[in-house]
Amino acid sequence: MPDDPYARPRYPLLIVLSGPSGVGKDSVIREMKSRGLPLHFVVTATTRPPREEEVEGRDYLFISKEHFAEMIDQGELLEYAVVYSDYKGIPKSQVRQALASGHDVIMRVDVQGAATVRRLCPQALLIFLTTRNEEELEARLNARRTESPEELKLRIATARQEMQRLGEFDYVVVNPDHRLNEAVASILAILEAEHSRVDQRQVRL
Amino acid sequence: MPDDPYARPRYPLLIVLSGPSGVGKDSVIREMKSRGLPLHFVVTATTRPPREEEVEGRDYLFISKEHFAEMIDQGELLEYAVVYSDYKGIPKSQVRQALASGHDVIMRVDVQGAATVRRLCPQALLIFLTTRNEEELEARLNARRTESPEELKLRIATARQEMQRLGEFDYVVVNPDHRLNEAVASILAILEAEHSRVDQRQVRL
Repeated sequence: MPDDPYARPRYPLLIVLSGPSGVGKDSVIREMKSRGLPLHFVVTATTRPPREEEVEGRDYLFISKEHFAEMIDQGELLEYAVVYSDYKGIPKSQVRQALASGHDVIMRVDVQGAATVRRLCPQALLIFLTTRNEEELEARLNARRTESPEELKLRIATARQEMQRLGEFDYVVVNPDHRLNEAVASILAILEAEHSRVDQRQVRL
Repeated sequence: MPDDPYARPRYPLLIVLSGPSGVGKDSVIREMKSRGLPLHFVVTATTRPPREEEVEGRDYLFISKEHFAEMIDQGELLEYAVVYSDYKGIPKSQVRQALASGHDVIMRVDVQGAATVRRLCPQALLIFLTTRNEEELEARLNARRTESPEELKLRIATARQEMQRLGEFDYVVVNPDHRLNEAVASILAILEAEHSRVDQRQVRL
């Protein structure tokens, strides 16, 4: 009975945290993880070898290219992308398990990937993370110093393009410099509000 | 440019707090007022005479029946009702002024009134306040002791009917006994989330 206020089910959410590179998706996820929230954080599968400090199942699921190809063939990936000749993707099975246990599921996906998730799962909750302005974004990309000037220019141009896709998302959250807590508070408010909606999202995968 | 994440306008919300009598609408409004939030609380116009402790403009706008009739004729009331041969209503002018100043506007309206507001203003944000269960509701109505047993029965039956109208609302918020703060926190989360929506509500009156 959806219209009985005393017996409302609580459907778990599938939350996609996205936005151009440099907006701080990883920092926000890390901060949320550190708070022990009742959320399931999706672990991405990758075909690249683990780095020294990385732990299987915590940082990534490290799988072979053969295994990855099989998952693509069988439609077992919610979304995947090629990153420098290696593959990264989100196994549906993991998301299904987490949802079945009743937990909200959150994952970090790039802007193109978010559109793919929306197509496969229209009831997913899409959050677009952004900086306050373009200067802040450029400064953050600059601060990484892990890229050549050409790569940096490419990242900035890509980010500018991706900012135009805001209309495909449900919510926009600003992640201002040095105020990570504000972004996290906004995301948590969005989750609480979504669970209070009379017309709740019901995710099917 | 709705799709520029760096230049988003912030449209004020028109929030209707509703629900059957006994769910605690007045307590929630009082608690919110006491916190000095940047919200405009609508003052209802009434034709009944002020009680001793009541202050014009704070508790009600006290106006004559002639004046009230004029406002009805000119469509200047967002919503009105007859309460024991006296009239109560919400002047549109007050809401318009508050919205123009950029503040979110909140008002306490009964369930029938909420439907009227929705009709006049489809972009209004409708929140249905409820108790955890029917026992809690009955206990609260009982505790008032201001009504005859017959009136009490009528209230309970009406509340039961009104609970069926949940589907006409956007959000449902539980106001549990002795935990007013939880209800207020949920409402504030809803407001924050609504302001983060890519597709914001734009109220026109």
